Amino acid sequence: MAESWVNHVDRIGGSDLHLELSGPGSKRAALTRALRDAVRSGRLAPGTRLPPYRSLAADLGVARNTVADAYAELVAEGWLTARQGSGTRVAERTRPLRTSDRPRPPHTVVRPGEPEPHAHPHSPPAPHPHPRTARQDQTLRHDLRQGTPDISAFPRTAWLASYRRALQQAPNEVFGPGDPAGRPELRTALAEYLARARGVRTEPDRIVVCSGFAHALRLLFGGGVGRQVLRGPLAVEAYGLPFHRELLAAEGVRTVPLPIDDHGARVDLLARERAVLLTPAHQFPTGGPLHAERRAAAVDWARARGGVVLEDDYDGEFRYDRKPVGALQSLDPERVILVGSVSKSLSPSVRLGWMVLPERYVGDVLAAKGEREAWASVLDQLALADFIVSGSYDRHVRRMRQRYRARRDRLVAALAEHAPHIEVGGVAAGLHAVLRLPPGTERSAVRAAARQGVALDGLAGFRHPATDMPAHDGLVVGYATPSEHAYTAALEALCGALSPGGTQMP
Amino acid sequence: MAESWVNHVDRIGGSDLHLELSGPGSKRAALTRALRDAVRSGRLAPGTRLPPYRSLAADLGVARNTVADAYAELVAEGWLTARQGSGTRVAERTRPLRTSDRPRPPHTVVRPGEPEPHAHPHSPPAPHPHPRTARQDQTLRHDLRQGTPDISAFPRTAWLASYRRALQQAPNEVFGPGDPAGRPELRTALAEYLARARGVRTEPDRIVVCSGFAHALRLLFGGGVGRQVLRGPLAVEAYGLPFHRELLAAEGVRTVPLPIDDHGARVDLLARERAVLLTPAHQFPTGGPLHAERRAAAVDWARARGGVVLEDDYDGEFRYDRKPVGALQSLDPERVILVGSVSKSLSPSVRLGWMVLPERYVGDVLAAKGEREAWASVLDQLALADFIVSGSYDRHVRRMRQRYRARRDRLVAALAEHAPHIEVGGVAAGLHAVLRLPPGTERSAVRAAARQGVALDGLAGFRHPATDMPAHDGLVVGYATPSEHAYTAALEALCGALSPGGTQMP
Repeated sequence: MAESWVNHVDRIGGSDLHLELSGPGSKRAALTRALRDAVRSGRLAPGTRLPPYRSLAADLGVARNTVADAYAELVAEGWLTARQGSGTRVAERTRPLRTSDRPRPPHTVVRPGEPEPHAHPHSPPAPHPHPRTARQDQTLRHDLRQGTPDISAFPRTAWLASYRRALQQAPNEVFGPGDPAGRPELRTALAEYLARARGVRTEPDRIVVCSGFAHALRLLFGGGVGRQVLRGPLAVEAYGLPFHRELLAAEGVRTVPLPIDDHGARVDLLARERAVLLTPAHQFPTGGPLHAERRAAAVDWARARGGVVLEDDYDGEFRYDRKPVGALQSLDPERVILVGSVSKSLSPSVRLGWMVLPERYVGDVLAAKGEREAWASVLDQLALADFIVSGSYDRHVRRMRQRYRARRDRLVAALAEHAPHIEVGGVAAGLHAVLRLPPGTERSAVRAAARQGVALDGLAGFRHPATDMPAHDGLVVGYATPSEHAYTAALEALCGALSPGGTQMP
Repeated sequence: MAESWVNHVDRIGGSDLHLELSGPGSKRAALTRALRDAVRSGRLAPGTRLPPYRSLAADLGVARNTVADAYAELVAEGWLTARQGSGTRVAERTRPLRTSDRPRPPHTVVRPGEPEPHAHPHSPPAPHPHPRTARQDQTLRHDLRQGTPDISAFPRTAWLASYRRALQQAPNEVFGPGDPAGRPELRTALAEYLARARGVRTEPDRIVVCSGFAHALRLLFGGGVGRQVLRGPLAVEAYGLPFHRELLAAEGVRTVPLPIDDHGARVDLLARERAVLLTPAHQFPTGGPLHAERRAAAVDWARARGGVVLEDDYDGEFRYDRKPVGALQSLDPERVILVGSVSKSLSPSVRLGWMVLPERYVGDVLAAKGEREAWASVLDQLALADFIVSGSYDRHVRRMRQRYRARRDRLVAALAEHAPHIEVGGVAAGLHAVLRLPPGTERSAVRAAARQGVALDGLAGFRHPATDMPAHDGLVVGYATPSEHAYTAALEALCGALSPGGTQMP
């Protein structure tokens, strides 16, 4: 059959064309596919006249209607044209697929000494470069960049068990259009969990599920003038994520930097801003908690000015000291919006976060999100609800807390031994530490680390361009990032770079 | 112990306060919790002075440090204040959680005769009212609104099998920050599937995963002036989804309606618009395919004017006639953006869609999406890739196609018997039919249906406010929406409403 087909096409197109009428489906489907491929590839040139149904059918040993149907289908798709009296021809307008001869648009490449413009402790657009980019840079084999948990520790078995239970128990309505607030099972589980683990005071109806912190920022500040839930100017910490500032700038929101001192952000300097974005549990990236007086002052300011505090609770679950710091939100649930996600506690691949809202914002945030759940996977929401309620989430966080604490301890001990001149800060909590450096030495330290194959960020890239507070030199060490077996080598390489004999630092 | 605690609090707060030092964790944790609860609930009033460590420790039979730690923690959280010389007091600023005394902001309620403002054949903000709202309206017990597949048919077992395989086989990098283009496994599976099932010509690197059609529109037209991938004005079909127009209007994009005739949208009227949004396979909601000449004309216009065709392939998999219509995209992959999702084929609860892009837009769309995957669940992406590659997707679509075709046939037969004066259109494909009505009778027909307990939309709500084409009266019947066992009753009720004896229509 292929033989006769080749012969036939010879007569049509004048070229030696090999086609196969094989593959799944009916003969009509196979013929349609073969013809389409021939036109698509340019082997059947535009304008070429196709044989009458009858003769092609005879050549191929198929019914005449089979050919007629295949032609009609390709006419409907625009590959062929049919005109009374002039038969069926290859359409003029089909064009072969242009083959990509340039590589995909490059993603940000992280160079040592220059933290990526979009560094981010959360999930969305963030500090870790594009995976493919990361693979390109084989010289930086030790990944100590902040922003990601140990992804080799994802609790596959427990998560799958929760997903299975959730899917099996779900009522049918789960598979329909979803509530934009999020599944009630998840909001109920979160309200209980956040009260227990973070001291959050809320109820399920004040929680709105989202796909992460960036989504929350967009819901609050996006939508264009007149449609925003919150408006700027927004005070932010003078050191923080450039990605957040850029996202806000894209929404037309001006950010005003608050200096940071040993007690955290200088919320006493808050004035006419309408909102303030804080990382109270563990300032990102400098690492300290917001002092109790400052916590209170932030809420007082919000009350006095009608403002709102945006609490970025990005790693609140990971605290290693004896004084866990609860959420600022608990001081005044009507003045604080708490935003969290599973990106640090579980994985950024599970695109789930939550907003704990004052009552007056719930309606506006839901309106911004849309009439249906258009973002967060409903099945993942149910799985996470089960994961929390079954205790798996607590077990996982506890396990990771122990693991990260041990790494933190090893980091501190190794530096005390090999680089005793370096002060380590921000280690009471979180997934990263800050190595404080003498002024003017940060860039050379990042370079020294890179020479040892260590990828990490300096503090400079996190600094708000408009702040006038004194610059801090330091390295941000994401000790959670490597897998367990890779941590030792990463730590050795880091110490090699920073030890007095192994670095260029003064 | 509770006894001594009660006594103690009596001395502090002057009220009969019962507290329990029970619950999980250490004594310190239990004490902290009990104190926090007492302050939170208002049982320990602001300003109240707490007893010295030593005396409370003695009363409770715990170590003095336990009390000191608990106090310190609550000071750090802002519940208590500690001042040298004046002891520890309940902070002034704590405020009990305001209990919600008004209901959640109401969601859109669908009234018969008035299609919801946000009707939508896709997933996000769409025609089906909020589930809770839907439950409120018990009188409309037959759901024939368009926009949703039969959610009782979600393939739980097969989906779970794919999810399990995907999770078990996933390399660790899956759990890290994701590629904003989407998982390569899914893009590869989609490129193959779309070529086979829809005639799409593309390659994995030109596909960008998103969370549905609304997300795609936001990625293309959002981001504010100067940042948009595409710009308006955008031509749209004169009948279409108000939700799309509203979303575009919110992004500052003007929509220009194209009249629709028996050959579909009048793309021959395209002029200076920069893009056109079409539903070529099955015009939504009127139901016809775009004529082959119009398909070609749309692409010709895009080439001549440097424009782009946005192909909304919302239900292209469900075709019941003998001439399946492939994707318009195949006519010119450099001039057509095809957008699809699993919302109709599988479930809107799986928040996954795809954009098949001309090469020149890939970089801009990825930039709009962000540096990491911030939206679509990566685990669901892997599950869908397996679901497609394993053949489960084809099997499910085939099964649903048969089911919907049978329902379509029953609808046509029932109307032919009970309401022979009504012409049924748009039935060659898709999940809905249009019952054409005499001019001026649509509203009364929707009301007649509502009296029989049938919820459905009239065509009027889908009409572009700026079009001057003649109005079409008709009912949009979403015959896919009910579960299999509920369809018979829904059909009977519909026929009861439309039969000459049972309706008010002329």
